[in-house]
Amino acid sequence: MKTSSRPNLHLVLIHYPVLGKTGEVIASAVTNLDLHDIARAGRTYGVRSLYIVTPVQDQLELVDKIVSHWVSGAGSTYNPKRKEAMAIIRVRDSFEAALNDIAAEGNGRPATIVTSARHQKDDTEMASMRKKICNGRPYALIFGTAWGLPDDFLQQADYILEPIKGPSNYNHLSVRSAAAIILDRLLGK
Amino acid sequence: MKTSSRPNLHLVLIHYPVLGKTGEVIASAVTNLDLHDIARAGRTYGVRSLYIVTPVQDQLELVDKIVSHWVSGAGSTYNPKRKEAMAIIRVRDSFEAALNDIAAEGNGRPATIVTSARHQKDDTEMASMRKKICNGRPYALIFGTAWGLPDDFLQQADYILEPIKGPSNYNHLSVRSAAAIILDRLLGK
Repeated sequence: MKTSSRPNLHLVLIHYPVLGKTGEVIASAVTNLDLHDIARAGRTYGVRSLYIVTPVQDQLELVDKIVSHWVSGAGSTYNPKRKEAMAIIRVRDSFEAALNDIAAEGNGRPATIVTSARHQKDDTEMASMRKKICNGRPYALIFGTAWGLPDDFLQQADYILEPIKGPSNYNHLSVRSAAAIILDRLLGK
Repeated sequence: MKTSSRPNLHLVLIHYPVLGKTGEVIASAVTNLDLHDIARAGRTYGVRSLYIVTPVQDQLELVDKIVSHWVSGAGSTYNPKRKEAMAIIRVRDSFEAALNDIAAEGNGRPATIVTSARHQKDDTEMASMRKKICNGRPYALIFGTAWGLPDDFLQQADYILEPIKGPSNYNHLSVRSAAAIILDRLLGK
């Protein structure tokens, strides 16, 4: 197995299943700026794609409409740099569908890396994950919206990434900020 | 001079003067999620305050209204963690007013650090700035909205921070993502 390939990393932003404010499993609404911010960060750090996962039909259509505006509509000539970022977005109605799509590229099913703001047993350090993702395999780096990914979803992943820790005990970053920081730690110079 | 103090860092988000799409100087509109995302990242990394600078009266009032909702209004009981982050926001009508406010805390006028997506002559590396800000002085870390800070504004600062570089030649991060990554590089563990 190769050990120093350019990472074959895909981002997955989950809107179902995620946790609501009181710990119940919900489908969250898509936030327009999540698409823009995470696609721009993804493009900056060289990720292959950003999957937006939601089972809600009108949310799927909304994301399609936003992405089309920037990739092939009026937005594409207004801001070609934004077009370049938004072009990495794919919309799927389930997590499984996103993984199947990555597998269909021919390099095998991606290893899954989940993120959480809470420390989990046996989580993997950023520095260790940074080395691992250069082994030539495809990886799916997964973020939950709302109050994050449910515990059983975390436990089914191949790797749980350690949480971001600042110097304070406050760790309530937006998913947009967390994605940016994790991409910088895993892929930044 | 002390060399290992906890950094006395303040964030300043500028809405005037900033560059518009075609390079002209404009006053940009305040974006609600800038307040939330940058305050949450600031609180996570232990910054002292986040100054929102706009000379536009109705924008000043809008920011006051948003911040009050989360700090003392209905939002403060709905989400006390968000209250903790939003409480670091101060609104001022000019950059000078923000600097004077930091100076009024009694530790002297802050040294100014500007950020830019473009390489500038004599810019300071992240690692070097990370050490410098532990010398006990107050520092103002300054971000431009829209298409960034004008050249003459950059040149008047004490330090210009090197731009964030990913592995690609694309570097069009949102100000929210850039602020998160820079805070992590300057103050992260």
